[in-house]
Amino acid sequence: MRGSGEHVHHEVNFSNTRSFGTSLKSDLKETFFPDDPFRQFQNQTPFGKAKKALQYFLPIFEWLPKYNLRFFRYDVLAGITITSLAIPQGISYAKLANLPPIIGLYSSFVPPLVYAVFGSSKDLAVGNVAAVSVLLAEQIGHVAGHVAGKEDDPALYLHLMFTATFITGIFQAILGLFRLGILVDFLSHSTILGFMSGTAVIISLQQLKGMLGLKKFTHQTDVISVTKSVFSQIHEWRWESAVVGIIFLTFLLFTRHLKKKNPKLFWVSAIGPILTVIVGCLFAYFAHAEKHGITTVGHLSKGLNPISIQLLNFDPKYLPTVVRAGIITGLLALAEGIAIGRSFAMMKNDQIDGNKEMIAFGFMNIVGSFTSCYLTTGPFSKSAVNFNAGCKTAMSNIVMAFCMMLTLLFLAPLFSYTPLVALSAIIMAAMFGLIEYEEAYRLFKVDKFDFCIAMSAFFGVTLVSMDVGLMISVGLSILRALLYVARPPVSCVGRMPDSTLYRDTQQYPSASTVPGVMILKLGSPLYFANSAYVRDRIARWIQEGGGLKDQKGSDIEHVILDLGGVTSIDSTGIEMLYEVRRNAELNGIKVCISNPTIEITEKLMSSKFINIIGKESVFISMEEALEACRFNLNESKQKSGSKNTPNATETDTYIDDDKLSRCSSSSKSRH
Amino acid sequence: MRGSGEHVHHEVNFSNTRSFGTSLKSDLKETFFPDDPFRQFQNQTPFGKAKKALQYFLPIFEWLPKYNLRFFRYDVLAGITITSLAIPQGISYAKLANLPPIIGLYSSFVPPLVYAVFGSSKDLAVGNVAAVSVLLAEQIGHVAGHVAGKEDDPALYLHLMFTATFITGIFQAILGLFRLGILVDFLSHSTILGFMSGTAVIISLQQLKGMLGLKKFTHQTDVISVTKSVFSQIHEWRWESAVVGIIFLTFLLFTRHLKKKNPKLFWVSAIGPILTVIVGCLFAYFAHAEKHGITTVGHLSKGLNPISIQLLNFDPKYLPTVVRAGIITGLLALAEGIAIGRSFAMMKNDQIDGNKEMIAFGFMNIVGSFTSCYLTTGPFSKSAVNFNAGCKTAMSNIVMAFCMMLTLLFLAPLFSYTPLVALSAIIMAAMFGLIEYEEAYRLFKVDKFDFCIAMSAFFGVTLVSMDVGLMISVGLSILRALLYVARPPVSCVGRMPDSTLYRDTQQYPSASTVPGVMILKLGSPLYFANSAYVRDRIARWIQEGGGLKDQKGSDIEHVILDLGGVTSIDSTGIEMLYEVRRNAELNGIKVCISNPTIEITEKLMSSKFINIIGKESVFISMEEALEACRFNLNESKQKSGSKNTPNATETDTYIDDDKLSRCSSSSKSRH
Repeated sequence: MRGSGEHVHHEVNFSNTRSFGTSLKSDLKETFFPDDPFRQFQNQTPFGKAKKALQYFLPIFEWLPKYNLRFFRYDVLAGITITSLAIPQGISYAKLANLPPIIGLYSSFVPPLVYAVFGSSKDLAVGNVAAVSVLLAEQIGHVAGHVAGKEDDPALYLHLMFTATFITGIFQAILGLFRLGILVDFLSHSTILGFMSGTAVIISLQQLKGMLGLKKFTHQTDVISVTKSVFSQIHEWRWESAVVGIIFLTFLLFTRHLKKKNPKLFWVSAIGPILTVIVGCLFAYFAHAEKHGITTVGHLSKGLNPISIQLLNFDPKYLPTVVRAGIITGLLALAEGIAIGRSFAMMKNDQIDGNKEMIAFGFMNIVGSFTSCYLTTGPFSKSAVNFNAGCKTAMSNIVMAFCMMLTLLFLAPLFSYTPLVALSAIIMAAMFGLIEYEEAYRLFKVDKFDFCIAMSAFFGVTLVSMDVGLMISVGLSILRALLYVARPPVSCVGRMPDSTLYRDTQQYPSASTVPGVMILKLGSPLYFANSAYVRDRIARWIQEGGGLKDQKGSDIEHVILDLGGVTSIDSTGIEMLYEVRRNAELNGIKVCISNPTIEITEKLMSSKFINIIGKESVFISMEEALEACRFNLNESKQKSGSKNTPNATETDTYIDDDKLSRCSSSSKSRH
Repeated sequence: MRGSGEHVHHEVNFSNTRSFGTSLKSDLKETFFPDDPFRQFQNQTPFGKAKKALQYFLPIFEWLPKYNLRFFRYDVLAGITITSLAIPQGISYAKLANLPPIIGLYSSFVPPLVYAVFGSSKDLAVGNVAAVSVLLAEQIGHVAGHVAGKEDDPALYLHLMFTATFITGIFQAILGLFRLGILVDFLSHSTILGFMSGTAVIISLQQLKGMLGLKKFTHQTDVISVTKSVFSQIHEWRWESAVVGIIFLTFLLFTRHLKKKNPKLFWVSAIGPILTVIVGCLFAYFAHAEKHGITTVGHLSKGLNPISIQLLNFDPKYLPTVVRAGIITGLLALAEGIAIGRSFAMMKNDQIDGNKEMIAFGFMNIVGSFTSCYLTTGPFSKSAVNFNAGCKTAMSNIVMAFCMMLTLLFLAPLFSYTPLVALSAIIMAAMFGLIEYEEAYRLFKVDKFDFCIAMSAFFGVTLVSMDVGLMISVGLSILRALLYVARPPVSCVGRMPDSTLYRDTQQYPSASTVPGVMILKLGSPLYFANSAYVRDRIARWIQEGGGLKDQKGSDIEHVILDLGGVTSIDSTGIEMLYEVRRNAELNGIKVCISNPTIEITEKLMSSKFINIIGKESVFISMEEALEACRFNLNESKQKSGSKNTPNATETDTYIDDDKLSRCSSSSKSRH
């Protein structure tokens, strides 16, 4: 055969199998320490190690020493910019969460400081996020509402909010400490896309309350009941409020439009909200808006965050709901914060340790819950502004916290004139951007299943409730992963003309199989969940003679199983390979294996499989395997005729009925 | 480069991408019709099709026409042999399920007939199984016991048993009709192994009741409470009973031993139980065993199965438990029955349609529940005897049913003298065989995780309860599947000396990489659950310079991603590839792709990914890719220096903060 003559003959390396300890270690490492945090500790002095460790756990010690004035200039600029965004966002999102607006301002003071110490992202700007705020409000609102019997009980509600934040913090910190960042990986992009778009829709709808200056409003979040409660009280609509709202909204959307046209003008849309608020305040103050039915935020007291640790409420009556709320929102906040931290880090080409971030977020929320803040994370809008404003380190968060402190100490009261309609406009403008229809369309084109996942989240959120939508969607994502494992592809491989390349005959029709030999490429993994399927599938391939026109199934004498792509196998999978071989031999077909990867080789060795089929029928490449097949085409035929079939049948005719299942019975015949 | 000169240049086949319809169809087919039942309908006349269809749904029409006397001789022999096993097993397992023994005999009359019509396995012998009997007893016993307030309420208990059987039947039939055989695949061999061994242990322990002639006994199944209830009443022990029991047990174990020594003597162990029963009856009759505290089965009335459809009890008070019991036992029964049917079919080298079997089992149990039978399936012991006795078709089941009918009509009363101790001995002997310690040890050697799964089932069953054990174990199996998806291996590939083979450098230390080029082999699949991991892992490989001594990471200029083993990718995975490329280019590293499989190619096409990276950087083989890299080593360097970096940074410096996550932001830069 051409192209193979001058190859040196290579054999599968059976010697180089790792000990159980080694492979376990590497598995655990890849599972829980994928980012390999220990690498940096290699070849360090004890002191160096200690220093590294300190820097690892408190990243601030990593960047602060190298800090210089040039950085500081950038960070101050960025810090001020995000403050201008933090104030309106804080007030609005606090309203979204049915909390006193001041809580929103508190939440932009303490948490950023904590994050600046523990956080490893340079670009993340800490703050509240709309989706999480609404989700919390929905969950806690239930108990706080029911119990109080009336609309709801503000004090209890507030305390439960702090408690939920505390639990979120604990949960996030634990995830981080136990290196369970892997959990967050199961919130797929499609899920988040659908969830966010859905949330954006319902939040925008809810803003109609503020826009139309409605007094009473439903607590349900689903589209139907929100729309109903809007249109059930048309007579309550206040045109003044609506007019003002539309003006603000148009302005904000215009600033966004500007930025879209010219990214350099991002700062216009960044300060847009604060401008809206200021203008709103002035307007409300001089036009006595209250008189014209334009309600304002109301009194905002001066002063820094009061301690709230004594307010945490672990009453078993509410605890289940609170814990549930804390965990769901915690995961969501992590998914958003970490995804964002990572993506910005990638752009500056450094990496982020998801688990470290979790710990940072955890501490941030624990401390936050002690100081009258509610759940914070790294919102995309703020972080993007931070990034665009050219922040260099987490110092920008410290600057923001400082500005926020000044605001709380001196300016807070001024914002009490902010008209609710202005806040609604700000939120709506922000939400419109989150409805990513063209992204959804892209999903539809690229991957229908991902599209379904996103849609299930979207409609779950908009039609049922936020947590239901989230769970359905996550469930679908996991189902997909399981389906993949249950049905790995088995494809028939052929030889590309005049080359030593072997490719899927379906993909490359020009690839032709060697008469009498069938090459099957197995997909990974070979697990209990798919071994029955793979076995039957291979049997079918053999029956169909590879589904190739140019040969009949009858004259197949060799089957080469290419395991090159199989990266994992379990005991059931090994049994399956064994059966495939035995059944093939019953039909006088010889089976050999090509290119097992390292883990497979190890497993096949330790399970004695190699000894049974003999090292001579395991090859390093299809080329070698094919060579061998051709060589002993006849010889192997006699073999399978005389030697193998008898012993195969011998072991099979009498079953030891102690044994329960096919696997044991076949394994039995090996002992 | 040697060995590549004479290769014809091949390119990735971009043209041959299947339409969405085609690929969806094939996906659905592989998922729900893996056995391709329609194949046989191809090129048939309408009449032929109808015939085929009839034969497909009622396999009896497939084998009955071809049936001949020679077959019949074998089947009669087999049928009689399994009857001799069916009688004692029926009585004993009915006792296990706390049911009147006659129910066990009923269960070997009607269900076999039903199965003979619908079932596609030639070797399966229908009957009750120990594990399922106990599991049912445990579950139903709870409600039937609680409600009655006293030990339990036999009538209610019996009716609930029929109801559970009915529900099992419905459940199994539905699974089959909706082609959900895939569910059974998630009961891994390790799970069943551990579960069966655990069950065997607790059942054997429970038999001490019969062996020691105890009157009262706990209803708990866990080891602790069983042992306690045995040793709490030592004074109650009856030595006569114990002696007789031990004699029987020794005899039975001896027959098994014989078979182990010489498989041809399987029939000895096959008729062992019936001998035990007969001897037991005679002994009890003549020695007036009752007087010596050896209790017997008690009255068995003549006559065939009474209709029990009117006894089905759907009282909402019990329904939840009953449904739960029905579903769990149903799945378990399927897992055992189908696994066994499959394995025997394999030995005779024909295939079994799991979904068709489910329908058969379903009908079998539905009809059974109408005719005073409880849950039946294909027990291994019986089927193995059937197989060894040389059965040819399901006719052996009909023969068994016929013999059983005669028994019910004329002999039933005789068996009323059967001493319970004999039954206990029979059960114990059977159970001992199910404790597969050496199989467990093999698992331990081959696959530690499988071992854990088996152990969790074993200890869950023995220490907590059967269903808990089962669920923990299934949970672990699924967790493993998910972990696999979350952490696909990424390995660095090198070139084997003097060949065109590229292999994992960890597996083949002799494989050397080309300076300046790193080849990474990605594991399958690339999904949302692992894209973050894979991206970071690749980044780490690049930083570490491939972890190879003979080069520094700094001088890597090309990275070749080998997707040969990747069989599935979702949108997040595609985004990941895009980011990997972009970030590599930020460091002036050029990324190209080699050997994408058909599904990947399709996805990359539809997502415009190929257009973005350009077809020229996708190669059919590592060889080609490497050629290209070497060729434009410098050129590409300039590229990545001048052209790519700017546009990459250009798109990155200003983030559109409408977009939520990294994926959208990166995808954004493509629209």
